[in-house]
Amino acid sequence: MVLENAKFSPAVSTTDTTPTNPHDVARCILRRAQIDAMPGVAKVHFLNDNARRTNKSLGDATGLTGLGVHHVEIPVGAESTEYHLHHHEDECVYVLSGRALLTLDEQTFELESGDFVGMPAGGPAHVLHNPGPEPLRCLVIGQRLTHDVGDYPRLGKRLYRNAGQWNLVDLVHVVDPKATPGSTVGNK
Amino acid sequence: MVLENAKFSPAVSTTDTTPTNPHDVARCILRRAQIDAMPGVAKVHFLNDNARRTNKSLGDATGLTGLGVHHVEIPVGAESTEYHLHHHEDECVYVLSGRALLTLDEQTFELESGDFVGMPAGGPAHVLHNPGPEPLRCLVIGQRLTHDVGDYPRLGKRLYRNAGQWNLVDLVHVVDPKATPGSTVGNK
Amino acid sequence: MVLENAKFSPAVSTTDTTPTNPHDVARCILRRAQIDAMPGVAKVHFLNDNARRTNKSLGDATGLTGLGVHHVEIPVGAESTEYHLHHHEDECVYVLSGRALLTLDEQTFELESGDFVGMPAGGPAHVLHNPGPEPLRCLVIGQRLTHDVGDYPRLGKRLYRNAGQWNLVDLVHVVDPKATPGSTVGNK
Amino acid sequence: MVLENAKFSPAVSTTDTTPTNPHDVARCILRRAQIDAMPGVAKVHFLNDNARRTNKSLGDATGLTGLGVHHVEIPVGAESTEYHLHHHEDECVYVLSGRALLTLDEQTFELESGDFVGMPAGGPAHVLHNPGPEPLRCLVIGQRLTHDVGDYPRLGKRLYRNAGQWNLVDLVHVVDPKATPGSTVGNK
Repeated sequence: MVLENAKFSPAVSTTDTTPTNPHDVARCILRRAQIDAMPGVAKVHFLNDNARRTNKSLGDATGLTGLGVHHVEIPVGAESTEYHLHHHEDECVYVLSGRALLTLDEQTFELESGDFVGMPAGGPAHVLHNPGPEPLRCLVIGQRLTHDVGDYPRLGKRLYRNAGQWNLVDLVHVVDPKATPGSTVGNK
Repeated sequence: MVLENAKFSPAVSTTDTTPTNPHDVARCILRRAQIDAMPGVAKVHFLNDNARRTNKSLGDATGLTGLGVHHVEIPVGAESTEYHLHHHEDECVYVLSGRALLTLDEQTFELESGDFVGMPAGGPAHVLHNPGPEPLRCLVIGQRLTHDVGDYPRLGKRLYRNAGQWNLVDLVHVVDPKATPGSTVGNK
Repeated sequence: MVLENAKFSPAVSTTDTTPTNPHDVARCILRRAQIDAMPGVAKVHFLNDNARRTNKSLGDATGLTGLGVHHVEIPVGAESTEYHLHHHEDECVYVLSGRALLTLDEQTFELESGDFVGMPAGGPAHVLHNPGPEPLRCLVIGQRLTHDVGDYPRLGKRLYRNAGQWNLVDLVHVVDPKATPGSTVGNK
Repeated sequence: MVLENAKFSPAVSTTDTTPTNPHDVARCILRRAQIDAMPGVAKVHFLNDNARRTNKSLGDATGLTGLGVHHVEIPVGAESTEYHLHHHEDECVYVLSGRALLTLDEQTFELESGDFVGMPAGGPAHVLHNPGPEPLRCLVIGQRLTHDVGDYPRLGKRLYRNAGQWNLVDLVHVVDPKATPGSTVGNK
């Protein structure tokens, strides 16, 4: 070991005493009353007029960028989104209050407060419906990857998301060069 | 447009009628009673003997791989982990029941049921303590990145995690070649 | 610093004297004569019958997985690929021998031995043509990302590559939900 | 299929006739004479005073960001870098002129013009030495990942690179919490 690390600067100062602003760290916290008081954003899914929800992004409000964390309220009779699946992003739901009819691969299950649903990337298509009588409130959490592919099986559509660009196509227009007989398509 | 897509195979079969096994999709659901009945894993943090929790990985149980989603129960008097921050992974906590004393950058806040804390990558160091009198139960959610760096500021330690390898060092032994006067260290 | 690293195992053994097999490390080397003797793979681009080349993957042969490194030979009169651009992957070419007509965004440039072309992700569409009289030989190097989008502007086609799945569509069938007037499409 | 894509805007305008500036696309090209005329950057490795090279980044000059592509000239008697390996980035070398003594895992091989060396991530440690009598010129290409770990086995040092931050440590100070007997350290 011929070289001494002593010639290099330390990576972390041991004399850094900069006080943190209490206001700054407090911004990481959203109390129940603050969440209740957030106006939220009224969202209608771009492919489903009955997918209506009030969305409060707890993650955005506290500075998260790599996780989407949403407090979602779905009125009686409405759906959470258009029935869909993600090929690359994991998603999950935790029910806070109300009841939900969850459809997974066209099979329906009833959910209530305290129930959890994990929706692995590439897994079953899913949608929530609120059968009433109360508003359905849940936490919806998802990865935020730079690249994802989503399917809307009931509409025969596929959505490619790449670095913020959204491309929507009908699945009947999508072909697979690798699956074609005689293809020599390979790796770059 | 000289070439017809008609020569290629469709990417998605429109005649695929394979029925999904109802048992398989039901594995995505964990009902409240099932979560209560999970034995959980007793965890003690490798750097803090008083960081004791019962951990139920809701994400692992339902097939998630890109998100860590945990139902965590912390007994009275114990802490959630060793006081730490992640440089690259976002984390967040939603309190389900009980009370918590949350420390963020050495400032303490009291939390209760329905409160949310977002801990952005690179953000304030954090730890939860359960002051009693009940068990503290919360959801803890985090990214699962291939690469991360974590700091334990009270112990002066840094943990490098790369593709499953964990390397722990004392910060006094870490130097920064780029910060060194006269350095010409650059991009590859 | 209340905790001693001494209780942990070292990350790297200092007594590991396993000898490396000389045959194994020699596999990283391809000498000029070995490259010449490789049979190569005759490739015709799946969208262009005149894009004919003999491809020797120097990277694959030496165990690289994150970089594509190819020795490419293009016969007189043929093209390198179908005219295209990558939205997310960088590519570059170094001419070893012969002459090339390089088209960049429909402008043509003549290249010869020792010339270099960098094709940044999202940059100009490109293709090489060998005007003769000799075979054109070059090194072609590219990123191998898990996700990419490629365009074939002369054919009006787009190729989405995600984790090994290839989806080809005609651009006339691709719509942008975010660009639609009145859209409230947002981040997850 | 209840919803028509016709309500959405096309993703790619078919009437976009913006002419590309010829000057702009020409910046992707570096001719042999231009490469020869580049002054280059004199680099000395921060851990090895005899690792002296003139570095011309062909990739940077043409706008590449995801690939490092360098024309490197090493004077007689000098080395390319400090003997090292990357745990996560692939690297490779193509010899343009001169001779090289390549050391791979402490075994030495002679290289000359037209020889190629692939250095897979995690593979053998490597360094080039120029035994003369001419300058050694080669192309050196590497991935540019956000996160990497590099080892300098002759110096017993490890370099962690994360999002531009460089942390250098002596391997004797690195411990592995997961390898420790009795450890229950697990996934997040």
